[in-house]
Amino acid sequence: MKPSRIEHIGIAVKSIDESRKYYENVLGLELYKIEEVADQKVKTAFFKIGETKIELLEPTSEDSTIAKFLEKKGPGIHHIAYAVDNVNDALAEVESKGVQLLDKQGRKGADGLTIGFLHPKSTEGVLSELCQ
Amino acid sequence: MKPSRIEHIGIAVKSIDESRKYYENVLGLELYKIEEVADQKVKTAFFKIGETKIELLEPTSEDSTIAKFLEKKGPGIHHIAYAVDNVNDALAEVESKGVQLLDKQGRKGADGLTIGFLHPKSTEGVLSELCQ
Repeated sequence: MKPSRIEHIGIAVKSIDESRKYYENVLGLELYKIEEVADQKVKTAFFKIGETKIELLEPTSEDSTIAKFLEKKGPGIHHIAYAVDNVNDALAEVESKGVQLLDKQGRKGADGLTIGFLHPKSTEGVLSELCQ
Repeated sequence: MKPSRIEHIGIAVKSIDESRKYYENVLGLELYKIEEVADQKVKTAFFKIGETKIELLEPTSEDSTIAKFLEKKGPGIHHIAYAVDNVNDALAEVESKGVQLLDKQGRKGADGLTIGFLHPKSTEGVLSELCQ
């Protein structure tokens, strides 16, 4: 398992409507999709930059993990997502190397991806996602 | 000013010797350079992934900004760096749009780059760097 690229960088924000202004007006990036992911209780907004993406994450409920992150740490970078060929194979491989998984199997994420999260305790403090 | 790609993601670690194991053995990335940046009081380690890089940052002094970050927040993502054609032009442009700068002019960074940092108060909570 070697990821081919950074698939996206997830950034927690209080309001996509407010935060998009920086990405659009200052950095000149284009917001190409807003999507709600009901089971994660977030609204997401995507900006393409080179071969990767920036994903803004706004909580849609107070018990969303993003709401808890914002409460504890404030707005900022939430996770890094790596592109892999096959999420389930990659999850099994990293688990065999001692990584603690948050998702034992790939599940449906935003922007048409199948995703699986690794526990930050096993990834040097960085919440990390594998995407296919 | 529109950045062409993510130049790198900076990640604060206590020890490059310890943290490199995850990037090398679990993610299968290759560490291609270790470099000390004396004026920032850090040792850096670089891994290439697609068109971007992961930069591990280990403090070399207790009064390094990375040492303070680790003390306050623990190991984790420290900053995002965007590739631009000309750092000084880009810094002037974002300042004209109301962004508070940490560097008024580009300065020498690791891995042969000229860099300038933007204040996270102006960038939706994400410490952001422009690189050339």
